[in-house]
Amino acid sequence: MSQERDTQTVFMEATYRALCTHGYADLTMQDIADETDKSKAALHYHFDGKDDLFREFLAYLHEGFAEKIADHPDGSPVTKLVALVRRVLDPVDDESDQQFNTAFMEIKAQAPYRDGYREILRRFDADLRTEIADLVREAIDAGQYDEETAPEEVAEHVLTYIHGTWTRAAAIGADVVTMREHLIDDLLDMLVEDATVPVSAEPPDAPALAASGGDISDEDADDGTVAGDAGIEGAEDDADSGYDGDDGDEVTLE
Amino acid sequence: MSQERDTQTVFMEATYRALCTHGYADLTMQDIADETDKSKAALHYHFDGKDDLFREFLAYLHEGFAEKIADHPDGSPVTKLVALVRRVLDPVDDESDQQFNTAFMEIKAQAPYRDGYREILRRFDADLRTEIADLVREAIDAGQYDEETAPEEVAEHVLTYIHGTWTRAAAIGADVVTMREHLIDDLLDMLVEDATVPVSAEPPDAPALAASGGDISDEDADDGTVAGDAGIEGAEDDADSGYDGDDGDEVTLE
Repeated sequence: MSQERDTQTVFMEATYRALCTHGYADLTMQDIADETDKSKAALHYHFDGKDDLFREFLAYLHEGFAEKIADHPDGSPVTKLVALVRRVLDPVDDESDQQFNTAFMEIKAQAPYRDGYREILRRFDADLRTEIADLVREAIDAGQYDEETAPEEVAEHVLTYIHGTWTRAAAIGADVVTMREHLIDDLLDMLVEDATVPVSAEPPDAPALAASGGDISDEDADDGTVAGDAGIEGAEDDADSGYDGDDGDEVTLE
Repeated sequence: MSQERDTQTVFMEATYRALCTHGYADLTMQDIADETDKSKAALHYHFDGKDDLFREFLAYLHEGFAEKIADHPDGSPVTKLVALVRRVLDPVDDESDQQFNTAFMEIKAQAPYRDGYREILRRFDADLRTEIADLVREAIDAGQYDEETAPEEVAEHVLTYIHGTWTRAAAIGADVVTMREHLIDDLLDMLVEDATVPVSAEPPDAPALAASGGDISDEDADDGTVAGDAGIEGAEDDADSGYDGDDGDEVTLE
């Protein structure tokens, strides 16, 4: 990738790490610069303040999210749909991922106050809705769901439910897996009432879930935050990959 | 009410107004004091900082919320249930109410970082879930819902969906009425599949909704924020009622 693109990526990954550490509300440009070997002035050269940086960061997250939700396993449309729901409502064990999910909720809460945030967040919604509706449509074409099923309405319901799961997990630590499996076992079945293949008959894709079967307990209620709300868990692992430390394209402004 | 209780109420109502104006993240103790005829020092006498004040404020909101969700109209259990969903997902026209709902989402996003916030937010959830489950149980007893209906599961689903509606409304301006009527017309009917009285047959309690029938448009998509997320819309109207301006119980600390 180009030098410019490289530097941009370094700042995006630094923003991810800084968010995990500081949350959104208290985060400063200095905190982000501190996650790189660049100066705060260098950051200000690239971004016109925190709002500008976060518009870029949301677009970067959206790119990862769009790839993630389109990355289907092999199988029938219903298999893909259930896997998609499990992918966007994947409980995370890693502390920094939990911190990121919490920070992402802060960003959503700031959206009404910040220029341009809502527009990008709407793209997350639109893409996820389209992906769900397309899979429902494919399931109808494949004879898995009754042809009376309304793809757009199912997608809208599932989307709202997914948002509720994210919010309850982040705000009060409600258990993601319980809510997610309710969605898959009960709601999805009902939304496509005449499914010839009940969605709940699809095996979970995670071994741990297969073992627990339908008997999802509440034991990890306080740990059940969600992964991949924005789809870039693990970004910190390759934060500096491909970056050679050349600061030549930056100008100190202060 | 007592002088002490009086002062407490003045501060709670001032916090509500200050939140509407400033949002949560940027809100200072001074902003709240500025909404009263008291000093910031007086505020610090009563509260050990912003977190302490907001624990008190959340408890105050919860009190209003608990009253609001228990205040049922006359009618059958299903009438009460539909009215409850409409009450907690009531779109607001008033700008300050919209601002409050946005600020309340900020508070939820801060809950993981602040001692005691989650515990109080869980009470909102627990009370709403109990109220819904009780009404479903009454509907079963009254023969309105099939006896196979599972009250706790229905309540859990509806609760998650309500959170999703609040979040999508605040974060991206999704239309509350559309999401709410989907919940009432489609999901609630399905959750209690063998309802002898379809919930969608219940007339909406708002004249405007009765007029629009099932054809809810998306026209006000950007205005559809929710009222009563915390149940005290209109608190600002009687902010100073019963308060006589006596500062005698306060000590200046700085």
